[in-house]
Amino acid sequence: MKVFACIAATAALLAFAAPASAQFAKPEDAIKYRQSSLTVMATHFGRIGAMVNGRVPFDAKLAAENADIVSNMSKLPWAAFGPGTDKGSIPTRAKAEIWAEQAKFKELNDKLVAETTKLAAAAKTGNADTLKAAFGSTGAACKACHDNYQAKL
Amino acid sequence: MKVFACIAATAALLAFAAPASAQFAKPEDAIKYRQSSLTVMATHFGRIGAMVNGRVPFDAKLAAENADIVSNMSKLPWAAFGPGTDKGSIPTRAKAEIWAEQAKFKELNDKLVAETTKLAAAAKTGNADTLKAAFGSTGAACKACHDNYQAKL
Repeated sequence: MKVFACIAATAALLAFAAPASAQFAKPEDAIKYRQSSLTVMATHFGRIGAMVNGRVPFDAKLAAENADIVSNMSKLPWAAFGPGTDKGSIPTRAKAEIWAEQAKFKELNDKLVAETTKLAAAAKTGNADTLKAAFGSTGAACKACHDNYQAKL
Repeated sequence: MKVFACIAATAALLAFAAPASAQFAKPEDAIKYRQSSLTVMATHFGRIGAMVNGRVPFDAKLAAENADIVSNMSKLPWAAFGPGTDKGSIPTRAKAEIWAEQAKFKELNDKLVAETTKLAAAAKTGNADTLKAAFGSTGAACKACHDNYQAKL
């Protein structure tokens, strides 16, 4: 009986130390969180886009600030695609393939994180052409995941 | 005429270099962005709360990671409360007083940023009691703004 109690206590401890994917009480909490972090990332990525596409003048300091936010935000959404978060009481465009192809999904997540790290470094050079190249690579990483795993509107 | 052209060009340049508050094309973009950044902040603040309130075991590394995210996120929402963003095509609980009392609103925003900076520093000490105290002060800063400027559900 003591052995069982010990196992139960250990299991409880492991449950508490579960990865971030298990840290959402309800599926809609995870959906709202991942949509929120992607919205913040997209907003700041869009501000860099406005610069590299010439809609606003290039501003090295602003570019670097935005790129740092993009880089930080790119790490967050993926933990909120845990098991059971494919549907909830709020709409989600996440496709079922995310949960059927976990390795490929994670590979694309990691790719984005790597590209945004390069984007932040590129922004710090203060060179508009370097930033533009990194913006393109990062955008391609966004698109690769959306093409595979985001339902069309 | 040349003088006018020069003034017009300067005005256009200043408009492009406008503060972040003007960087949202539509009011609902600003509303969605500020709600998103507050959601991400609240999620990670809640994870620290789970530790300091004993719902999950204290984990210094996780606490520090979460506190850094809270600190970074706390800087973002305020630029999205610009003029004309009090209403949009998505619901907002932001009260009209925000735009009537800009100085007081900014003071409370700055207070939150200062408290989350202290929270991140407290988390890095690895001391659970230090973290708990900083969590309480940060929560009070959240509440002060909500009490004044967020409509009740």
